[in-house]
Formats: sequence, C-alpha cells, structure tokens
Amino acid sequence: MRRHITGFSNPTVKHLRSLRDKKHRRRAGEFLVEGLRLLEDARASGRVPSLLVMAEGRAPHALLARLEEEVEAAGGEIVVTTPDILSKITGKENPQAVAGVFGEWDTGLARLDRGAAPIWLVAQDLRDPGNLGTMLRTGDAVGAGGLILIDDCADPFSAEAVRASMGAVFTQGLARARWSEFVEWLRAGEGQLVAASLRDAVPYRGAAYRAPCFILVGNESRGLPAAYEAECDLRVTMTMRGRADSLNAAVAGAVLAYEVLAALEG
Amino acid sequence: MRRHITGFSNPTVKHLRSLRDKKHRRRAGEFLVEGLRLLEDARASGRVPSLLVMAEGRAPHALLARLEEEVEAAGGEIVVTTPDILSKITGKENPQAVAGVFGEWDTGLARLDRGAAPIWLVAQDLRDPGNLGTMLRTGDAVGAGGLILIDDCADPFSAEAVRASMGAVFTQGLARARWSEFVEWLRAGEGQLVAASLRDAVPYRGAAYRAPCFILVGNESRGLPAAYEAECDLRVTMTMRGRADSLNAAVAGAVLAYEVLAALEG
Repeated sequence: MRRHITGFSNPTVKHLRSLRDKKHRRRAGEFLVEGLRLLEDARASGRVPSLLVMAEGRAPHALLARLEEEVEAAGGEIVVTTPDILSKITGKENPQAVAGVFGEWDTGLARLDRGAAPIWLVAQDLRDPGNLGTMLRTGDAVGAGGLILIDDCADPFSAEAVRASMGAVFTQGLARARWSEFVEWLRAGEGQLVAASLRDAVPYRGAAYRAPCFILVGNESRGLPAAYEAECDLRVTMTMRGRADSLNAAVAGAVLAYEVLAALEG
Repeated sequence: MRRHITGFSNPTVKHLRSLRDKKHRRRAGEFLVEGLRLLEDARASGRVPSLLVMAEGRAPHALLARLEEEVEAAGGEIVVTTPDILSKITGKENPQAVAGVFGEWDTGLARLDRGAAPIWLVAQDLRDPGNLGTMLRTGDAVGAGGLILIDDCADPFSAEAVRASMGAVFTQGLARARWSEFVEWLRAGEGQLVAASLRDAVPYRGAAYRAPCFILVGNESRGLPAAYEAECDLRVTMTMRGRADSLNAAVAGAVLAYEVLAALEG
C-alpha cells in the first residue's frame, strides 16, 4: 500500500533526509540509494530496500513497478511524495525519481572468504568517497573479491561512494578494520600484501605477484605510513616520468590491479 | 605594495569571487588557484599570478615571501584581507591562506607539438572536473605531452580540476577543440588514435601501439559516439571480469596510458 506524504515536516521525510549525514546513517544502520539504475543493481544482487520513496506524477515504469511489488512482498514500505520533498530528501535540485533505503550490512573481516577471488583491494585512510566508490567499481572490473577499508576511510554507504561504485557496493565484498586487526586476519591465512612505494621497491611491471593478492593503497595526501609499507610482502614502483611522484589513489590502485590481473592470468 | 581589503563588498573581492563561476572565468580570461603548493607548482612552470590574495595575521613563510616578491617584480598586485573574506572568495569554510589569479592561456591545437611526447591523452565530453584534473595528473606521470579536450568537457581552469591535477595543469599541454577540428589536425601529421571499445576491438594488453599515441576517452555516462570509435586506428578492450562493462573514465585512461607506456618503452 502506498503512503502519500505531502508535508516537509513529516517524520519520515526528516529521517530520510538525515541519512545524508554519516552520523545518522551509522546510528540508524541504514543508507539511501538514489536512482532506478542503482536500485536495479541492488535487486540483481538480492538486496531489496526496506522503504521506497517515489515522486508522484511520473509516467509508469515497468522496472519500477516490479521493484515496488518486491518491496511490498518483502514487507517494505512504499512512500509517494512531491518532487520538491524528494529534492529536499536527496539534497539535489533535480533528484532521481526514486530512492530506496537499505540496511547497512556487516562489514567485519570474518565475513570475507579470501579464497573466493585472486585479487583484493585494500584502502587505508582513503578520505574521498568518489575514490572509494571508484575502487569498488574497479574491483568489480578486475574480478576482485572486495574492498577492505583500513583506519579512517570515507563511508562506503554515502550517496557519493555508492554512485561512484556504479552498483559495485552491492556486489563487491566490503570490510572495515583497524590496521592491527587486518594484519592479524591477513597473516592467519594465505595472502600477499602489495603496495606501491618509493622505498625498497621493484618495478610494478613483471613483479612476482601471487594470489590471493591484496593491493594496498594509502591516503590521498600522505600515502601509506612507513610501518604499513614495511609490513608488505612486495613493494612495487609505478613508472613516473613527470614532475610528481604519485598518482591519484584510485588510479594507482587500478593500474596496479590490472597489472596483477594480467600477471596472475599469465 | 600590499593593498588591504576589509570590506566584503569591495569590487576586487566580488571579482575574485566571480571566478568560481565558469561563465565569469571565460569572460575575464582568468582563473583562481588556491594554496601555496599549487602556486609553487605554477611558479616552477614559469607562471606568476597577476594578483596574490593572502589572509592577514599568518606567520611569515619563506616560500610565500618569495612568491610575493616575484608577483611584485612582474607588476602584479598583492592583496591582504581577512580570513572571512578569503573564505567568501574561495567558497570554503577553511580556505587555504593564499590564492592567486592567473590569466588563462591559449588552448588552440596549433600550440601543441605532437612530436614532443610519445603519449597524448584525449577526452571527449568529459564532464567531471575531478576526472579531468586526474587525467592531467596521470598525463604528467606517464610523460604525456598533454590533454586534448574534445566537445563539451568540464573547464580545466575550475578550482576542482586544477586541484585534482596536482599542478599538472601548469605543466601538461592543454588544448580544446571540436571533434572535426581535432581529426583534421590529427590527420595532418603522424599519430595513432586509440580508444577503449567493445566493438571490433583487440585485447588492450599487447596491442600494436605506436608513438605518438593519442588515447581517447569518452563521456562518463555515454562513452564515445560510434562515429568517433570508427575513426580510431586501434580499438582495444580492457579486461572486464565483473558485472559492469566500463571503468571510471579517468581510470580507463590511466590503465591504457600505462599499458601504452610499457609497450612503447619495450
């Protein structure tokens, strides 16, 4: 059954709007996904929103109708509102015509099966949600198992990260851990930890990668702490022909991931 | 001589603030660069701002003092103002302590010397200024000659693009052209045009790249028009192991650029 909301001060509107804020997302354990395309990606991965909010007065859409049915079948809520209120919820002048609320899932390391994929991406203190989402998208492309977020990274459930991931947030594994916790988990099984580095490193091209290979990327401004680099099994240097000595973090991770993929597939 | 500005409605403040807007930048032929690090990058490339605006009450800084001298020697203007006004100018709550105004330069194709570098990046309809800046940064890293912007790309002189370029906007060649103009220029000399494509393509790894190699990347949502792909001398496919069939535009350009660099250096 559809519930119509026409008031800006409606508590549901306030709640949905609050999900733009990291603190509120964490407290509620929920996040908001905008747009039919991302909602379809979620659906394809078996995730159905607990609440669907749609702008009224839109032409019927087959995919949206099916999604609405699935949400209702799963006991979820359907909310219809004005374009203005949807604008207020999403914070966008021209919002997508639909958004859905999902419960955040467990991002503990224990849920990852390292044997399930030859490549894993690991980001430390990655602050830009666009970079984070881009790494998830790259992980999908190279057939990675997922992305492990170390220390104080951006929120993978923010609208910007979800959008930049192009839906990969629903398909890639996702874990969050402190560095010590991650190292303990990593060393309890198979796994090669690799980082791009300027110290004591071999050329990234033709290096001895082996699966499961964990590709570690550091903070956008500071790179990796020296102690983290020292923990790596392999340090590789990317070719740098210019004035600068580093690449964008998501770019560095991608160039390295494609190199590892080619090496492992021989 | 330093000029002190304490009023929000001062015409210089209004002018500087207007440079955040693309339309005003184009009309004035000027853009604003924030932060000493980027200003130092500009200086290293021989570019001195026509106006330097600094927050008052900061501790002296040797690099900033030298920059100030150079601006004055070149007949430029030094403006000192309050942190609040600098905040208003840059639109940031915690702005950098200094910003500089530069004249935009000629971005005609005729200025590029294609023989000067083995790799050139070409972006078509690239809308995200962060992606654009990241491509400039990657271009610097692979020793590219520059970035050619085709059709309706983001503004390379926007604050976001300049910041994402990490200063490479000052060192990489930069041109803007319509597609037909670019193709005419390209075909008037040596040059291989390469694009990542799903149509009639060979694997990107081990493809027959040759210098000067022009790597063409398309719009973030739509990719390249079919006619543009058809014009390419070489179409290559990136490995895609996941659900999606594309990478982030700046990531695709970087993975390809590193592959071309490795191939050309043999």
